[in-house]
Amino acid sequence: MSTIGFIGLGIMGGPMAANLVAAGHTVLGYDTRQEAAERLVSAGGAYAGSAAAAAAADVVITMLPDSPQVEQVVLGPDGVLEHAKPGLLLVDMSTIRPDTSVAIAAAARERGVRALDAPVSGGERGAIDGVLSIMVGGDPEAFEAARPVFEVLGATIVHVGPSGAGQTVKAANQLVVGGTYALVAEAIVLLEASGVDPGPALDVLAGGLAGSRILELKRKSMVARDFTPGFRIDLHHKDMGIALAAAREAGVALPMTGLTAQLIAAARANGYGPLDHSVLLQVLENLSGKAAS
Amino acid sequence: MSTIGFIGLGIMGGPMAANLVAAGHTVLGYDTRQEAAERLVSAGGAYAGSAAAAAAADVVITMLPDSPQVEQVVLGPDGVLEHAKPGLLLVDMSTIRPDTSVAIAAAARERGVRALDAPVSGGERGAIDGVLSIMVGGDPEAFEAARPVFEVLGATIVHVGPSGAGQTVKAANQLVVGGTYALVAEAIVLLEASGVDPGPALDVLAGGLAGSRILELKRKSMVARDFTPGFRIDLHHKDMGIALAAAREAGVALPMTGLTAQLIAAARANGYGPLDHSVLLQVLENLSGKAAS
Amino acid sequence: MSTIGFIGLGIMGGPMAANLVAAGHTVLGYDTRQEAAERLVSAGGAYAGSAAAAAAADVVITMLPDSPQVEQVVLGPDGVLEHAKPGLLLVDMSTIRPDTSVAIAAAARERGVRALDAPVSGGERGAIDGVLSIMVGGDPEAFEAARPVFEVLGATIVHVGPSGAGQTVKAANQLVVGGTYALVAEAIVLLEASGVDPGPALDVLAGGLAGSRILELKRKSMVARDFTPGFRIDLHHKDMGIALAAAREAGVALPMTGLTAQLIAAARANGYGPLDHSVLLQVLENLSGKAAS
Amino acid sequence: MSTIGFIGLGIMGGPMAANLVAAGHTVLGYDTRQEAAERLVSAGGAYAGSAAAAAAADVVITMLPDSPQVEQVVLGPDGVLEHAKPGLLLVDMSTIRPDTSVAIAAAARERGVRALDAPVSGGERGAIDGVLSIMVGGDPEAFEAARPVFEVLGATIVHVGPSGAGQTVKAANQLVVGGTYALVAEAIVLLEASGVDPGPALDVLAGGLAGSRILELKRKSMVARDFTPGFRIDLHHKDMGIALAAAREAGVALPMTGLTAQLIAAARANGYGPLDHSVLLQVLENLSGKAAS
Repeated sequence: MSTIGFIGLGIMGGPMAANLVAAGHTVLGYDTRQEAAERLVSAGGAYAGSAAAAAAADVVITMLPDSPQVEQVVLGPDGVLEHAKPGLLLVDMSTIRPDTSVAIAAAARERGVRALDAPVSGGERGAIDGVLSIMVGGDPEAFEAARPVFEVLGATIVHVGPSGAGQTVKAANQLVVGGTYALVAEAIVLLEASGVDPGPALDVLAGGLAGSRILELKRKSMVARDFTPGFRIDLHHKDMGIALAAAREAGVALPMTGLTAQLIAAARANGYGPLDHSVLLQVLENLSGKAAS
Repeated sequence: MSTIGFIGLGIMGGPMAANLVAAGHTVLGYDTRQEAAERLVSAGGAYAGSAAAAAAADVVITMLPDSPQVEQVVLGPDGVLEHAKPGLLLVDMSTIRPDTSVAIAAAARERGVRALDAPVSGGERGAIDGVLSIMVGGDPEAFEAARPVFEVLGATIVHVGPSGAGQTVKAANQLVVGGTYALVAEAIVLLEASGVDPGPALDVLAGGLAGSRILELKRKSMVARDFTPGFRIDLHHKDMGIALAAAREAGVALPMTGLTAQLIAAARANGYGPLDHSVLLQVLENLSGKAAS
Repeated sequence: MSTIGFIGLGIMGGPMAANLVAAGHTVLGYDTRQEAAERLVSAGGAYAGSAAAAAAADVVITMLPDSPQVEQVVLGPDGVLEHAKPGLLLVDMSTIRPDTSVAIAAAARERGVRALDAPVSGGERGAIDGVLSIMVGGDPEAFEAARPVFEVLGATIVHVGPSGAGQTVKAANQLVVGGTYALVAEAIVLLEASGVDPGPALDVLAGGLAGSRILELKRKSMVARDFTPGFRIDLHHKDMGIALAAAREAGVALPMTGLTAQLIAAARANGYGPLDHSVLLQVLENLSGKAAS
Repeated sequence: MSTIGFIGLGIMGGPMAANLVAAGHTVLGYDTRQEAAERLVSAGGAYAGSAAAAAAADVVITMLPDSPQVEQVVLGPDGVLEHAKPGLLLVDMSTIRPDTSVAIAAAARERGVRALDAPVSGGERGAIDGVLSIMVGGDPEAFEAARPVFEVLGATIVHVGPSGAGQTVKAANQLVVGGTYALVAEAIVLLEASGVDPGPALDVLAGGLAGSRILELKRKSMVARDFTPGFRIDLHHKDMGIALAAAREAGVALPMTGLTAQLIAAARANGYGPLDHSVLLQVLENLSGKAAS
């Protein structure tokens, strides 16, 4: 069992760190919010007074909101790299821009630190149950070294390529998810405006080539206009920004993704940021002037 | 067992009519193409020399390319309604505009004919194997009367609402399918341009919230650029026209559908009309100037 | 001076027919609405009791809402072609699908009738003042024959190609106009949401490469949320349908046009159909959850 | 006449600095490229060995590629603010993100420096001729203080609001320009594919409500497929990134802008980066599989 520094103990990081404690690892956690740190301590972890202190571990996991926070914690003054011991395994599980992950891996290499980008999907529920999907970019050896840790946290663990590849796959995932919600929303808007009961209609769609995990899991809640998160629009809005930045970096044009990003931006602009991303249905209803049901 | 007139013995209608013969029905088939009629005869059916002759049956099924053909065969001079006996059950299984189905049902009612719109999904394979999905609009009694026939042809048979509802559900199905192909294509374009092997990456997507029947069935062929149909762009182009006409009729705005329709139009404009609809990947690669693999 | 049959005496056709009377032509007008016919009579024209009666003239002008009306009046039983004398000059000034114009010209030719498609822009104001822009498709000789009539009605009169070309140019015009409104609307939404006074900002845009007739004529009314028509959304919605049908017919993909069409459809779905097309600003504000000013 | 530090002597900054010299100002120029500095010296300016040295002036103008360069030169170690004397007037004429301009103005204020954001339009030609359009954000007093300098450089000089407003207006300008090019391109694609000569057709459009500066200046070169810059796709691609970032910051959804950004990204992905932005025509032709003319 290794000593694991865990920086970022929020909705996702909190239960992930607790699962590592439960699996027998020594976890040195850090978060700027006192109550997050306290939750870890009551779960059996130890509180590292700073990111630097957490960096003294064999493995450091970061689970932070966005690129700037990761850059600051890892690359900044008194950051992880400054205090890392040689051979440290640095696993960033945040969802950030692929090019930031590449830059971090390069900076880490100079310090003798092995870095992986390992964003996840599966949400709070997946974090609590330890069944996340983990998309990992970086050196295969580093991936193998981190595997025992990943196996505590996730059910699907895939090495998808070199540094940044984990983030690229996450970006691809999010653009497909966001776009699929928008398409299902348009289908519901069309059905209802045509006087067709969406219940049995979506059952048919779910059973054929139009079928998707989203139709399977969310069609009933969408028709009922239950937009309890789940995964919040605010986060998906951030992720669409990453997807478009990744496309820009890769030199490709993604028109469906560009439009999806604007629809998700519209959701946020309407104050739906804290709601589930399936609230795209409400955006598309509003667009056609339909009153919320 | 009933006598069934079957008008339109093409790629879909041919095997459907043959299945009805095999199930013990008397099938009077009609098609303007001699060879299509001959195939039915060799399968054990009878050749009706005209649509009018086929209309003498208890049940008439039409399986035709688009709204104008259905209107002509059903409503035109010497058409089905003109020659129908009272109580005829008219089942249009073509994919046409919902408002055309509504108009046909109204005209049928005046003649004492019960009409259903019953478009299908599942493709040639589903037609041959008798496992189509059938979305039925019209009176519940007429639906029940037609059920024994549907059960020969399909595996999923759902009554989704009044006249036109079957077509609306099919339109909703097709917009979700077309849009999902475009999204998966954009994911592949982003992954490949970022230097990520799409194989394991799409495995991850297929296993999570981004998962869909399309990712399940088509991701390998798409990555291999195998665009053998399957369901042809030409047909999907027609169907997107129907979906947009249905949206116009219903008074709603569907931006993702509007964009998907243009991408499918681009596929056709590039000469990909006879290829599988997954060829949207090629359209999106071309857009970013990537050479076909 | 010729005898001119004028079919369709509405908002546009009424003043156009009156201008022809004022220019010394004998005008035989027809409209299904009694009051429209009466207006023509009080302007000095004569009332033709039917389209057939109006067809007895040397020149027949049609100014009707959409393709089906033109088809009925021209091609239908008791229609213009049935009653036309050989050598009739048939000028359809309605905005309809290019392929309908082509079909009408072909049917006319069989009857020895010379047909032109001659849609206009410039609105009610331009019709009253006789300063319309007229885009003419058809044989050059027929165009020259009709020129004296066009010169009464319009200020810009251009022969743009063979039959249907007039409609295609009108479609191209309408897609650019609709899209430009949407772009200007997005600019205003961005400016206002950023706390920038749109007045001087749009002055800058109007004076540079972003400048357009729309910015010149409409920026003040848009900022003031004065959406008095002008040209109604209902008509622009119809015209976008024509533009997309023309693109489909021509085998091209027009993504910006496809999206513009959905935004205009959204305007209509919100009940803005009777308002000026600049009300796209309200659609885009609604999309971002901004209250109407 | 004041002493002006001028940092960034490229295609735009070079002639602008030369114009200031010609107007009698003492210009201390700086650029990392030796030849750019030499051109200034031969125009009569002085070479400042560093940004810090240029900061010793009464007015400092920056004309740099993008936000990171401006941040480094102004805010970085040994940057302008570190070496500014109190009361310095700092005029950033680069096109960057509005929020970067706001941040720079705030940092400047703390140092007793008055900062303006003053992006321009009008291109290399406008820079050489001193007829740029200048959109200025910042305090009105600072704007008045800078006016004599602006009058050397531009013909249209407008104070559009507080710090960042200049950039927001530039972003609005660029989204309208980019989108209008795409619309005109779609019009040309539709016309040509329909067999209509685009020359007279675009003359009609240019003369009516579809008219724009772009149609006025560029329709002939577009039809001739002459894509000599002018304003390069590479720069417009950068500017669309700024427009979308500004929309994100302002909390609004801009679907037409989002799609335009992807079409411009496609231009770049196809290697058209060094060509004029009117090359969007080529992108839209490619989309429909038309060979370049």
